[in-house]
Amino acid sequence: MNLDDLPIRDDLRGKTPYGAPQIDVPVRLNTNENPYPPSPELVADLAAEVAAGAATLNRYPDRDALALRADLAAYLGHGLTSDQVWAANGSNEVLQQILQAFGGHGRSAMGFEPSYSMHPIITTGTNTAWVRAAREEDFSLDPGRAAAAIEEHDPDVVFLTSPNNPTGTAQPLETIKAVLAAARGMVVVDEAYAEFAREGTPSALTLLPEHPRLIVTRTMSKAFAMAGTRLGYLAAHPAVVQALLLVRLPYHLSTLTQTAARVALRHREDLLGTVAALRAERDATVAWLRDKGLTVADSDANFVLFGRFPDRRRVWEGLLEHGVLIREVGPPEWLRVSIGTGEEMAAFRAAMEEVL
Amino acid sequence: MNLDDLPIRDDLRGKTPYGAPQIDVPVRLNTNENPYPPSPELVADLAAEVAAGAATLNRYPDRDALALRADLAAYLGHGLTSDQVWAANGSNEVLQQILQAFGGHGRSAMGFEPSYSMHPIITTGTNTAWVRAAREEDFSLDPGRAAAAIEEHDPDVVFLTSPNNPTGTAQPLETIKAVLAAARGMVVVDEAYAEFAREGTPSALTLLPEHPRLIVTRTMSKAFAMAGTRLGYLAAHPAVVQALLLVRLPYHLSTLTQTAARVALRHREDLLGTVAALRAERDATVAWLRDKGLTVADSDANFVLFGRFPDRRRVWEGLLEHGVLIREVGPPEWLRVSIGTGEEMAAFRAAMEEVL
Repeated sequence: MNLDDLPIRDDLRGKTPYGAPQIDVPVRLNTNENPYPPSPELVADLAAEVAAGAATLNRYPDRDALALRADLAAYLGHGLTSDQVWAANGSNEVLQQILQAFGGHGRSAMGFEPSYSMHPIITTGTNTAWVRAAREEDFSLDPGRAAAAIEEHDPDVVFLTSPNNPTGTAQPLETIKAVLAAARGMVVVDEAYAEFAREGTPSALTLLPEHPRLIVTRTMSKAFAMAGTRLGYLAAHPAVVQALLLVRLPYHLSTLTQTAARVALRHREDLLGTVAALRAERDATVAWLRDKGLTVADSDANFVLFGRFPDRRRVWEGLLEHGVLIREVGPPEWLRVSIGTGEEMAAFRAAMEEVL
Repeated sequence: MNLDDLPIRDDLRGKTPYGAPQIDVPVRLNTNENPYPPSPELVADLAAEVAAGAATLNRYPDRDALALRADLAAYLGHGLTSDQVWAANGSNEVLQQILQAFGGHGRSAMGFEPSYSMHPIITTGTNTAWVRAAREEDFSLDPGRAAAAIEEHDPDVVFLTSPNNPTGTAQPLETIKAVLAAARGMVVVDEAYAEFAREGTPSALTLLPEHPRLIVTRTMSKAFAMAGTRLGYLAAHPAVVQALLLVRLPYHLSTLTQTAARVALRHREDLLGTVAALRAERDATVAWLRDKGLTVADSDANFVLFGRFPDRRRVWEGLLEHGVLIREVGPPEWLRVSIGTGEEMAAFRAAMEEVL
């Protein structure tokens, strides 16, 4: 018997599991991880907290993660309080809960592609129809055209990604406001990479007081260097959080996850200290690639999209042969490199010299 | 603005979040937790493993949790291998993934009520229709009548719970076989409480080699005393695991969860040592309640369903006034008490004497 013999959902037939290849190579620049490990102080603090909390691991966790949500609200600022914040196992689960509450059969969600490829996957995984709208040639969004696409398709959920993944550029607030004005349903601004944005890039969090249908999602996987902890979260009107309580699986967030996220927030100066280094390395990478005559999208993230390669697979494989794993993702003829340490980026540049 | 003003899914309107009251009382016997905390040895081992693994928390976890799945397969025995085992954040997430793969809009799942109340909630949360079939008056299942209900409604997924929650009694294999013979779709045997079953109660794991549409789910929240870790798992044909890979959120299981579950499995002799004590306490509780003239369902679990109380709320509240929190759940006129330590059960009995 094999998979085809099982009575799986019809729209899953022939599909393959999502995920970048997990290849063991010296230089991994493929999944936008933060290359800097947690500090010894954070590790010691985490071990101590786990030891202290483990004595009650026989009990279910705080189902509402109240202490963690208060800490996240304090980190976000903007006057947010814990009743406006929600957390789950990675922003993927946050997005899935949003779609379970506001999407589902007979409803639709729209995104502007190329963008984060999990948005359509999570959308269809919740029986929600996916409506694909296009970005401009330079991957930007024209506010008028974005609004027109929303008016045409009337989606129940709209995804904006800022900074956008895999292209890297943040959305101006004007575009987000135009989308909010046009949309009847919920507007999700996925800000997974917000901490890496260039100076002067405002967060959609500033729009929350005026827009009760706006949801801003974040993650601790990137700037916080906590990809292994799997902690995604959002800020929104308290009624949105109440809606998510109707669909969340009870006790979805383990005691260990709540503990680790709170420890990481306490050490945020250390963790976010790596952001400045990564931004500088990113800007240098953009400049170097442009210097090589390549086309590079402006980046507000910890990755850079560059091209154009009529045969991008050849470039990707060439880099891999030199021990550098990047990501073959997004629009054809483009490749995405995550920003690593100085040494890793030197290895990337050396490999690029060989491959070009 | 409040929840009613938001464009939530129509079938969520007017609902309230699932969950037992989390009340801070001296004796908590309401959510079937294991009352025995992890041993100091386990806690020290866990803290050491977390400290060792924390240095790579900036990296995503093993997406396929291969080492954990191998350990779980070894624990389950029956010749199972890691490709037949899958794990997620609590058995709730395991069940949700099963419904995402095999249910969805236009499909249905059936359960025999009273049973675990999350089954219909997770079912409708995945846009799957819920079909309710009835148990016999004594909460057992008649194999012929169960098969007839399946043939009548032709569900895509059938849930059996063994031992059943909240009634407590395990299913004979004959019943499971009759259901497997009648069902066209997947048959999920939820064995969350399997380790507590009375001597000689076989697991549905023994049926796996002959039944590729059978899924047996388990959890580390109960016998393993790891409710705070949130680790649910299943055993099934490898093709079933491949189907779940199509719907699982990538990196759904954190490094910390994988680590804690593996540590707990290493200490399983300690953890499962509490099972014998809980079974003895359970049998004594059943005998004591019957001695008081109450009706008590046979229990293979770490809880006991007893009644009948024309006003069960009064009994529940009376116990709470004496600092004992049990669960008002399941069929009307019945109450469920989780099995605690000897001291906790003495407090329960004393409170019952007062209330009766």
